[in-house]
Amino acid sequence: MTLNIVKIGGNVIDDQVKLTQFLMDFSKIKGPKILIHGGGKIATRMAADMGVVTKMVDGRRITDQAMLDIVTMVYGGLVNKQIVSSLQKNNCNSLGLTGADGASVLSHKRPVNTIDYGFVGDIDCINESFLSLLLANEITPVFSPLSYDPTGSLLNTNADTMASEIATGLSVNYNVNLIYCFEKPGVLIDVNDNTSVIPLLNPALYEKYKVQGLIFKGMIPKLDNAFAALHKGVKKVIICQADDILSMVELMNKGTRIEL
Amino acid sequence: MTLNIVKIGGNVIDDQVKLTQFLMDFSKIKGPKILIHGGGKIATRMAADMGVVTKMVDGRRITDQAMLDIVTMVYGGLVNKQIVSSLQKNNCNSLGLTGADGASVLSHKRPVNTIDYGFVGDIDCINESFLSLLLANEITPVFSPLSYDPTGSLLNTNADTMASEIATGLSVNYNVNLIYCFEKPGVLIDVNDNTSVIPLLNPALYEKYKVQGLIFKGMIPKLDNAFAALHKGVKKVIICQADDILSMVELMNKGTRIEL
Repeated sequence: MTLNIVKIGGNVIDDQVKLTQFLMDFSKIKGPKILIHGGGKIATRMAADMGVVTKMVDGRRITDQAMLDIVTMVYGGLVNKQIVSSLQKNNCNSLGLTGADGASVLSHKRPVNTIDYGFVGDIDCINESFLSLLLANEITPVFSPLSYDPTGSLLNTNADTMASEIATGLSVNYNVNLIYCFEKPGVLIDVNDNTSVIPLLNPALYEKYKVQGLIFKGMIPKLDNAFAALHKGVKKVIICQADDILSMVELMNKGTRIEL
Repeated sequence: MTLNIVKIGGNVIDDQVKLTQFLMDFSKIKGPKILIHGGGKIATRMAADMGVVTKMVDGRRITDQAMLDIVTMVYGGLVNKQIVSSLQKNNCNSLGLTGADGASVLSHKRPVNTIDYGFVGDIDCINESFLSLLLANEITPVFSPLSYDPTGSLLNTNADTMASEIATGLSVNYNVNLIYCFEKPGVLIDVNDNTSVIPLLNPALYEKYKVQGLIFKGMIPKLDNAFAALHKGVKKVIICQADDILSMVELMNKGTRIEL
């Protein structure tokens, strides 16, 4: 059976009009599906309102206890529950989760090498039987980007990686399509030209574009995650725009398809 | 089969030492169980930090949009997920919920009579089959005091009432014990004397104590909820101290037992 796992990025979370449209489209996807959402800028704004300083190293947030509390509130509470209630309104029976809920995503605190990222989790495993139970009962899991260390702490976790690990874990039972939605219509040859979508990307092309400097920065970990998921049994990985989610799932005619 | 449904009040939520002990005890309760938690004062503090004015009428919070966002963050996010991760640490596989998750607690916005309470919900029904599915799979639902209007809004909801409605809804399938934990060792004859616990309270005694002014204020809606639950099929209702939860469940020798 096909399972569509969709990751929606922070830029859509921050745009109420886009988010509403995306959730209407997502609700229409037939068959079992899972949504993983990023955080958006709300946590940073909230931290500023509360006088908590957001520490960043190399573009990555350092998660101290105060910041962990804020992301738990904002991602695990506000954003997650607003998405769940919108999906319910669209007749999509959804269930909001962090990795602690149902022991669904277990991780460990990232070890300190040169940088101490604080309460940040690297995923060990997902609870595939729990997620399969939900899916078999036509419940759509909606994940906030928080995993869980069994010694008792929630951990801030990269949403792209969550999506990739959940897709991998469930590929034992399902034909998994993993779909990363972001602000561009796919992986672009020219970052300033939205018509330059690469329709198909394989390891050889990926290497070539990296060497040429056409694929760079944030796109590299995203694509590394994509290839890792394919190596571990995920059937298809697609990177596309949130607006295109429905035609992508139904017709597979949008975005960039990643393949081995 | 016996199902223990426990409501834990805000005063325990606000006391980290008491909460930790309570969650250790709760984890040891055998068989299916559900926890419903109140909010505590964190939402009020958070609102103050963020410059949102907490409006109260007759001791009841008025929930405008800004306050709804705060209680969604604090009750549905921070408090709920901290409880879930603590329970997981104690080997109690739990799942945090608002009424929107799994369409578990449906309600409608309270109609405006003399007071407009804002985004406050009065419960219509619970999703008994979803909760039974979780319980059958040894998952412990943990509810924050938020229900859901199917037109799309989360609604702030009284935790005592949530507990009573969930208990009633599940009494079709289970022998339900509904246990309200609060700061006193039971319903007291003399509010200043913790040894004056009323061991058994029936409608006749309740009326008598009300007339005598020995039972008053916040205890009245709590007891009204308790009697309503018994009338609708709940087997036992007990009011006790959080510290006593385990000996109460195992020996039934603590707190005040309410009966018809």
